[in-house]
Amino acid sequence: MALDGYFEGFTRRDWQTIDEGQVEIAVIGLGGFARERALPAIRDAEFCEVTVLVSGSPEKAADLATSFGVERVLDYEAFRDGEASDAYDAVYVATPPAFHEEYATTAADRGKHVLCEKPLAVDHAAAERIVAACADAGVVCMTAYRLRTEPAVRRMRELIADGAIGDPVQVHGGFSARLLDDMSADTWRLDPDVAGGGALMDLGVYPLNTTRFLLDADPTSVVAETHSGEAPFDRVDEHVALQLTFPGGVTASCTASFDAHPDSRLQVLGTDGQVLITDPFGGDVSQEIVVERGDTHTRYAGPSVDEVREEFDYFAHCVLTGEDCETDGEDGLTDLRIIEAAYESAEIGERVEL
Amino acid sequence: MALDGYFEGFTRRDWQTIDEGQVEIAVIGLGGFARERALPAIRDAEFCEVTVLVSGSPEKAADLATSFGVERVLDYEAFRDGEASDAYDAVYVATPPAFHEEYATTAADRGKHVLCEKPLAVDHAAAERIVAACADAGVVCMTAYRLRTEPAVRRMRELIADGAIGDPVQVHGGFSARLLDDMSADTWRLDPDVAGGGALMDLGVYPLNTTRFLLDADPTSVVAETHSGEAPFDRVDEHVALQLTFPGGVTASCTASFDAHPDSRLQVLGTDGQVLITDPFGGDVSQEIVVERGDTHTRYAGPSVDEVREEFDYFAHCVLTGEDCETDGEDGLTDLRIIEAAYESAEIGERVEL
Repeated sequence: MALDGYFEGFTRRDWQTIDEGQVEIAVIGLGGFARERALPAIRDAEFCEVTVLVSGSPEKAADLATSFGVERVLDYEAFRDGEASDAYDAVYVATPPAFHEEYATTAADRGKHVLCEKPLAVDHAAAERIVAACADAGVVCMTAYRLRTEPAVRRMRELIADGAIGDPVQVHGGFSARLLDDMSADTWRLDPDVAGGGALMDLGVYPLNTTRFLLDADPTSVVAETHSGEAPFDRVDEHVALQLTFPGGVTASCTASFDAHPDSRLQVLGTDGQVLITDPFGGDVSQEIVVERGDTHTRYAGPSVDEVREEFDYFAHCVLTGEDCETDGEDGLTDLRIIEAAYESAEIGERVEL
Repeated sequence: MALDGYFEGFTRRDWQTIDEGQVEIAVIGLGGFARERALPAIRDAEFCEVTVLVSGSPEKAADLATSFGVERVLDYEAFRDGEASDAYDAVYVATPPAFHEEYATTAADRGKHVLCEKPLAVDHAAAERIVAACADAGVVCMTAYRLRTEPAVRRMRELIADGAIGDPVQVHGGFSARLLDDMSADTWRLDPDVAGGGALMDLGVYPLNTTRFLLDADPTSVVAETHSGEAPFDRVDEHVALQLTFPGGVTASCTASFDAHPDSRLQVLGTDGQVLITDPFGGDVSQEIVVERGDTHTRYAGPSVDEVREEFDYFAHCVLTGEDCETDGEDGLTDLRIIEAAYESAEIGERVEL
């Protein structure tokens, strides 16, 4: 395809095969991302709607329910007891990672489809139990990697798959934030028991998962370095740098930080060209994409697309069509396996084979 | 300093303390870089001139001598024998790395100052002998890191030292070329005995050395992965990815490739901002510099400056003033120590402490 072809119809949903259908969703956990990104996204979505909110403070959720036209609000106990279970076909688990397993498996056992925030769980073993519960119940299990439905990332993947930059050689990716600018020092993100890890788990998973998606391959080994400074960053990795090796010797140099200037970028260098995307992980922003091939340098500023809406519609589309979900539980499981290996590598100072 | 202050007088020579003086240089080895970059640079330089050319094919060098107004052309034997040694104060050693030691030490023993191409030698031991010979003779020993006198890199370093981006956290750097586009498969760069290594030695040393310069620090450990494909890339590292750890947990993720789309870039992410430079290593090009601090994004396209001319003037300036050379032999030695550790890490799959 000529380069123009990727940029025309930039926001196309290459995955969409049906035009109608509705999936009713219970949103479990009403933290910042659920309130500010997920609920508006589902409101704007084509194939799903929120019918139930599950919160530890149902009274606080009442206003939210009114704003988004949601009739039922449950506390966690009521959810566990199966209250209002006829009112939803699927759950979106947006609690901190340590609680994913309980709500995801409870929902699966009840025959509900599961969209679960990343990381899928605090560790690989818990994630395996989520995947198994969904498989046993025959329900969709999707890990909420919003980048997978982000048009710029999908177009970038098509370009690479079509050989537009030759064979991939090296990837550089990074995602950083100043965590304390947006939240207090007692955030669960800095509690390893609740979060499962630090910057790698929460932010590094973006370049990691996106690189795997873009290369359509899994790494064969990893080396990593972590650094933890003073409180409140002393219990998790504040900064992380990891280097993944993929089949054929392709490498990915990825970094993440909880305490650095907010930045996100991804560069895939190939034998015949390269593609760069600025701010791929930052959320609802207009990315700039640069494609270089030989002497040609093309800069493209894509429209801003709400990839969270795309993500929910993709999930609902999987539920409605029964088609394989490309961002399934196994995908989240694979990242956790890599993340655990990276932490191990940082600790023992050795390359860890995957 | 306000950001503007760095960009005004962008090309200033912060190192210059004198206004006149001339150093006579013998250029040893007349490969592509010497012919196309070094000779024109010295012709344009303020503090030096070429008085002798040393070549394996003196008859072929005759035209070059005429073009650049150089009176004496020697073959290597005549140089070793000390012919015309009154005609030069210093040598520029531009042979392949395996021959650096012989010519650099011969010149030093003769009391001549030495500017030696990078890598300083094929291994750390040979580089130590060069440094020792220069120290014994009391002559200047400079490693030819042209980036050290490149204005954009110097301004970037000042910005970082002044805390304009807070504390550095993570560096990403890369340098790639399609070697066979410019040279034949029998180039010495693919012969480990002559080059001392592959992409890391020839290209990776740029992000490595420049990162050390920008951070004003040396790494404490390194992990690396190398990949060698089919002939002619089978005897050296065709691709390399390395991850350096500096004091305070700062990391640098660097890559280099002999067989990828030509690209060079460097990004230093700090706690309060970041600075990026596109094409820092590509030679005589106009770099684009981006400085981000908080919500401010400043993009600056600097004038194209011949950093090779700057490099020769800096060397001559050190000779004339007797001031310490900041790109001395020890600096080249340190890089070789790191490069050897990186190769060891790639082989044994372990972090190597430095």
